[in-house]
Amino acid sequence: MTQPSRSDALASRTRLDQLPLKDSLVGSAPYGAPQLHVTNQLNTNENPYPPSPALVADLAESVTELATDLNRYPERDCVELRRALADYITAQTGVGVTAANLWAANGSNEVLQQLLQAFAGPGRKALGFTPSYSMHPILSAGTDTEFVTCPRDHKDGFRINPATAVAAINDHQPAVVFVTTPNNPTGCVTDRDTLTAILDAAPGIVIVDEAYQEFASTESAVALIEQYPAKLVVSRTMSKAFDYAGGRLGYFVAAPAFVEAVMLVRLPYHLSALSQAAALAALRHSGDTLATVATLAAERERVREALLAMGYTVAPSQANFLFFGPFADNADIWKRFLDRDVLIRDVGVDGWLRTTIGLPRENDALLAAAGAIAAEIGLENTGN
Amino acid sequence: MTQPSRSDALASRTRLDQLPLKDSLVGSAPYGAPQLHVTNQLNTNENPYPPSPALVADLAESVTELATDLNRYPERDCVELRRALADYITAQTGVGVTAANLWAANGSNEVLQQLLQAFAGPGRKALGFTPSYSMHPILSAGTDTEFVTCPRDHKDGFRINPATAVAAINDHQPAVVFVTTPNNPTGCVTDRDTLTAILDAAPGIVIVDEAYQEFASTESAVALIEQYPAKLVVSRTMSKAFDYAGGRLGYFVAAPAFVEAVMLVRLPYHLSALSQAAALAALRHSGDTLATVATLAAERERVREALLAMGYTVAPSQANFLFFGPFADNADIWKRFLDRDVLIRDVGVDGWLRTTIGLPRENDALLAAAGAIAAEIGLENTGN
Repeated sequence: MTQPSRSDALASRTRLDQLPLKDSLVGSAPYGAPQLHVTNQLNTNENPYPPSPALVADLAESVTELATDLNRYPERDCVELRRALADYITAQTGVGVTAANLWAANGSNEVLQQLLQAFAGPGRKALGFTPSYSMHPILSAGTDTEFVTCPRDHKDGFRINPATAVAAINDHQPAVVFVTTPNNPTGCVTDRDTLTAILDAAPGIVIVDEAYQEFASTESAVALIEQYPAKLVVSRTMSKAFDYAGGRLGYFVAAPAFVEAVMLVRLPYHLSALSQAAALAALRHSGDTLATVATLAAERERVREALLAMGYTVAPSQANFLFFGPFADNADIWKRFLDRDVLIRDVGVDGWLRTTIGLPRENDALLAAAGAIAAEIGLENTGN
Repeated sequence: MTQPSRSDALASRTRLDQLPLKDSLVGSAPYGAPQLHVTNQLNTNENPYPPSPALVADLAESVTELATDLNRYPERDCVELRRALADYITAQTGVGVTAANLWAANGSNEVLQQLLQAFAGPGRKALGFTPSYSMHPILSAGTDTEFVTCPRDHKDGFRINPATAVAAINDHQPAVVFVTTPNNPTGCVTDRDTLTAILDAAPGIVIVDEAYQEFASTESAVALIEQYPAKLVVSRTMSKAFDYAGGRLGYFVAAPAFVEAVMLVRLPYHLSALSQAAALAALRHSGDTLATVATLAAERERVREALLAMGYTVAPSQANFLFFGPFADNADIWKRFLDRDVLIRDVGVDGWLRTTIGLPRENDALLAAAGAIAAEIGLENTGN
C-alpha cells in the first residue's frame, strides 16, 4: 500500500458508477445554477442590496455573545426565533399568528423536504403547476414521492387555470400540492379564487410557496389558514426580499398541528445557534432591509417596459425577476448575455430566460445587452 | 370570521391526528433529550469547555467580514471548508486526504441522512449493532429504509461479535451498515479485525460513525478507506471533541465518488455562509480546543474507577461518557440523579444509564450523587 500523494485524492480511482447508488438516482446530476463570477450577477434572484451596517454590527455582537456557549447544543425548538417570525408575519399580513404557527429550518428547501417527509413519500404523489420552482420535483424525488405536473397556461402569462387545476387534482389525488406564488420562474401570482378552488379540491395538503411574496402587492395566503387549517401550509424564506440568502433561513406558517408533524421528522438541533441568532438579528433590522423591496419593484417595472419596447415578450411579474423571450435557442441567447458580462438563468423552459432585478447599474447592463441581442436576432423594436 | 387573539395560536383547534400524515409516522413522537436546565448538564455528551477567547474573537471578525455579503447565496460546494477539514484529518490520522474526500453538512445527522437518501430508501435495509446511536433508526425511518438490528455482546462490554455480525449481514443483506466506534451509548470501540470482517461481508456501504473518535486512543477507520474505497464512509462531527455542538457541523471522509453521490441528494446551499465561516474559525483553533480532550479522557478514567469502587458496573469507554448500571428501574434512578441536580441520560437500555464526562466539579457532583444512590439501592462498596 503506497502512501497517496496530497495532490491526488485518496481512493480517487473508484467511480460513482461503482457505488451501490439507489436505482432512482443512477444517471442523475446535481442541482444548481453555475456559480460563475460575473460583473452582473442576475441569475439566482438574490436581493442585490447588502445588509445595513447596523445589521452587520448587531450580528457581530450577537455572535460574540453566543460564541462562548458554542460547545452546547442549540435551543432545539427555536422558540425565540419562531416568536420573532410570528411577529413579522403578523405585522406583514395582518393575520395574528404565534410561535406555535411557525416553523423554521435551513432554507425553505429544508422546510419543504420536512413537509414531504411527513406528508408524502413512497406510494404518494406531489403535484406542481409547471413551469415552477425546479426544486419541487427534486425534493419529491429525494423523499421517494412521485411528482406529477399540471401545465400553467403559457398564453395567459403562465397563470394556473382553475378548471385545469381541479381536474388534475381529481385525476392524480396528490398528497401534496405545490402552488408557488409569485411563481418562480414566471413571476405571476395565483389569485384567491384559484387558490380556494385548489384547496377545496385537494385531498391532502397544499403548500403555498411564497418565497417572493414580499415583492407582491397581493394578499398573502396566510389569510386563508383559518379557513383551511388542516390543509394549508404557507412557506417563506429570508433569502429573497430579506436580503439574507447567505444565512439560509426558511420557514412556514400553518396550524400548530403542522409544526407537531414536522417535529416527527426534523433532525434534532437542525438549526445552529448561529443561524438562530443571525436570523433574529436580521428580523430586528427588517425595516431597513425591506426598504429595498419597493426600489426593486420599481426597477422591475422599468426593466419590463424597456424589454417590451425592444420587442421582447415579458411575463407579468410580482417578484424580483422577469421571465422573457421568445428565443429560438435558449443556450445561445444565455451565452450572448454572458459574453456581455451579464449572468442570467436558463431554467429549461424552451423560448424563455429569467433575469433577476439587480441594482440600477446591473439592470442597465442587462438592458444594454438585451438591446444589442434584440438587434442581432431581429426583434421588432416597438419604439417607445 | 373573528380575528384570533394573539394569546391563542391561529387554527390551534386542528389536531395532529386530523392531518394526512404518512402512515409510518402515525403515533410516533419527536426525538430528543429533555432540554432541562440543571447545574450539572451531563446528558448530551457535549464538551464542557467553552471555546477559547481567541476563537471567539476570530469568529466575530469572520462574521463581520462575511456579513456584508449575506444577501448572496453561500459557496455551494463548501470547498474551502472541505479543504480545511481534509488538512485536519490528514494531521489527525496520518492518512493523506484532500477536499475531494471530504463532505460537510449541518451536523452528522444531515450527513447520515444524505447517505441514506443516496444509498438506501424503500426496499433497502440498514443494519445497526444495538444498543447504539438512537438516530440511526430514526434517520432510516425518515428515508423509508427498513432498519434491522444485530445485538452487541452485553457480557463483553457491548462489543460487536464478528461472527454474529457477519451472520446478520449475510442474513439481511443490508444496503447500509452502521458501526459506531467508539459506540454511543456504551463507549466501547470496534477493533480493526471486526471492522474488516464487516466490510468484507457487507454487500453495500459501511458507515463508520466516529463522532467520538478524538477521545479514543485507537486508530481511525480512515486508514481503511484505501482498502475499501467503494464501501467505506467514515462520518465525524465537530459537536463533541471539537467543542462546537452549537455550530452544527458534521462531515464524512471517503472516496471522492461518495461526495459525488451525496451531491445528487443534498439540498443546494445547505451550509450557510455563517456555518462555513464559523467551522473554518473553529478549525483554525483546533489546537486549543483539542487540548481539552486529554483532560476529559483522564477525568473519564477517574470517574470510572470511582463508580467501580462504589459497586457499579461500568462499560469500558474510549469516549467522553460512561455507561453504567445495573439498575432495576432506569427511570427511578435517572430521577434520583436529577433530584440531586445532575442531569444524565436514559437511552432506553434496561439496567443502564449514560453520563457525560463534564468539568471536574460536575463529575464530583455526579460521583456524590452516585455514592448516595449506591447506598440507597444497596450496592456493595468494593472499598478502594
